[in-house]
Amino acid sequence: MTSDSHVPSSLSNQSPQPAHASLIPFGQRLADAVLAKKNPVCVGLDPRTSSLPESIRPGAKASFKEQADAFRVFCFEIIDTVHELVPIVKPQAAFFEELGPYGMDALAQVVRYATQRGVLVVMDAKRGDIGTTATAYANAYLGSGPEGSLAYSPWGADALTVNPFLGIDTLEPFTQRCHASGSGLFVLVKTSNPGSGFLQDVIDGTQQTSAGVSLSEKLASQVETLTASSRGTDGYGSIGAVVGATYPHQLAAMRERMPSAWILVPGYGAQGGSASDVKHGMDARGLGAIINSSRGIIFAQDNPKYRGTEWTDSVRNATLDMIDALTK
Amino acid sequence: MTSDSHVPSSLSNQSPQPAHASLIPFGQRLADAVLAKKNPVCVGLDPRTSSLPESIRPGAKASFKEQADAFRVFCFEIIDTVHELVPIVKPQAAFFEELGPYGMDALAQVVRYATQRGVLVVMDAKRGDIGTTATAYANAYLGSGPEGSLAYSPWGADALTVNPFLGIDTLEPFTQRCHASGSGLFVLVKTSNPGSGFLQDVIDGTQQTSAGVSLSEKLASQVETLTASSRGTDGYGSIGAVVGATYPHQLAAMRERMPSAWILVPGYGAQGGSASDVKHGMDARGLGAIINSSRGIIFAQDNPKYRGTEWTDSVRNATLDMIDALTK
Repeated sequence: MTSDSHVPSSLSNQSPQPAHASLIPFGQRLADAVLAKKNPVCVGLDPRTSSLPESIRPGAKASFKEQADAFRVFCFEIIDTVHELVPIVKPQAAFFEELGPYGMDALAQVVRYATQRGVLVVMDAKRGDIGTTATAYANAYLGSGPEGSLAYSPWGADALTVNPFLGIDTLEPFTQRCHASGSGLFVLVKTSNPGSGFLQDVIDGTQQTSAGVSLSEKLASQVETLTASSRGTDGYGSIGAVVGATYPHQLAAMRERMPSAWILVPGYGAQGGSASDVKHGMDARGLGAIINSSRGIIFAQDNPKYRGTEWTDSVRNATLDMIDALTK
Repeated sequence: MTSDSHVPSSLSNQSPQPAHASLIPFGQRLADAVLAKKNPVCVGLDPRTSSLPESIRPGAKASFKEQADAFRVFCFEIIDTVHELVPIVKPQAAFFEELGPYGMDALAQVVRYATQRGVLVVMDAKRGDIGTTATAYANAYLGSGPEGSLAYSPWGADALTVNPFLGIDTLEPFTQRCHASGSGLFVLVKTSNPGSGFLQDVIDGTQQTSAGVSLSEKLASQVETLTASSRGTDGYGSIGAVVGATYPHQLAAMRERMPSAWILVPGYGAQGGSASDVKHGMDARGLGAIINSSRGIIFAQDNPKYRGTEWTDSVRNATLDMIDALTK
């Protein structure tokens, strides 16, 4: 395993240290990356054993370790293919967790490799808990600096998706860690699945200042407050939000409600969101939103349009097509 | 590492298999365990390096691997101490995740050891996501059967805490896995932290059948629907709820709203909940709720009342005192 670092976890009990002067806040780093790559595409790393290219796919009786090795090879090749094209990648923790500790070790290697190749990483792990437990999750995932530095974490991501169900107080340990390590958050505000409205669209009927707004709107206002203080020269802070492409009308309203927040937009492509749906998330400079596609890019070889080439060429062509659709 | 199993993850793409005839549903297994141990105590396994007993605590420069080894030793000793006293233990995934892949490996070993010693395990990981991603989390954590069986999972827990923020549709992959592997869920309904009301207490002002109830109540009704179909001979199903001890009035109301659901009650002891607060969760037979204490038991040696004895004796005495308070 690669993570035998010498940072004691007792550090997490200390109050956050000021960020090292060389640490640029995540919101600014993301703006720089989007401007440099001239597009907002986020490639989702969602490996599944049964969908891997034949040349990589392990046998039906493969152990967790063999599957985790295959995930690592697959993701490294994707990173090699897209690192000069896109600003950011998004590994889905669950698919690595399904393989147990071997999968979690592969996940750490994938994140480090992306960082080495100059691509930002948002870890899609949707963690959320209270107090010191939230601090432990933040320490686990947030911080892509070198070993031994305060900006180091075992999984080494630049940003993390977090679940706000337990309350706004539970986001504070995460935002503290962001401040100390130059990393960022994407708070779930409106997810892309068909049933997301069950809680998220509920209209607040309580007698208070937020009465009459939906839970998603209530959350969006909180995200704006949290991120405004870390706003960089390009106007965006380090605390962002997740708003699904499958609800374009809400995406436009959320953009207005959170003018300083980066929005991570899932649901493009395979889940039904189109380029015109997601453009509501971006400003005139092309900043303010990153648009994720997972299956549509990493398993592009399964699409008749891209079949017949090397699988990494399919990945490359699908990425270029998505960039074209979002920037033309 | 211990989890080099030969169960391919492609299994997760198949429709759920019927549970093996020998698999007793989690709701029934928990009732059997509470009746056998004659108490509802759940011991929370929340190791922190800086709080470990001196005889186990690694040095300030300990690596993640050394800390993870210490967590394993600490939790094994606690399990040795409490396995004949209590029905269930609850490892907190975050504290193991903070140590990276080594921590996640220690976590798997702790769960297996508890299972070997005859104690049920609820993994407190508060996972939640959509579709195949939720299936991957379910496969990762739910299932304490032998390797190679459908009831096997790399982390091997009997039950898992899950976050319902993304919608009720996102619980289905978890309930399917419960059915296939004889495992259970505890859905977050009302958490114990001071800020839990921000979303959870919002009164639904939407024009629909659930208008006028709080989100927690809305969720509780859904949990009752989900669990009623798996109700065992003792009256409780395998899909439970988390309701904090710090809100005793709501606990009583939730008990009425979910008559078939096990309630996992955090917040006892260190967070302020008392024995009289949590009794609202249990029926006349002492079934229906499990009451968790973490710091109050595992770090009992820090309490003047238990100081001066071997640390495992402090753990034992604190456990016996809690059992006494809840059953007298």
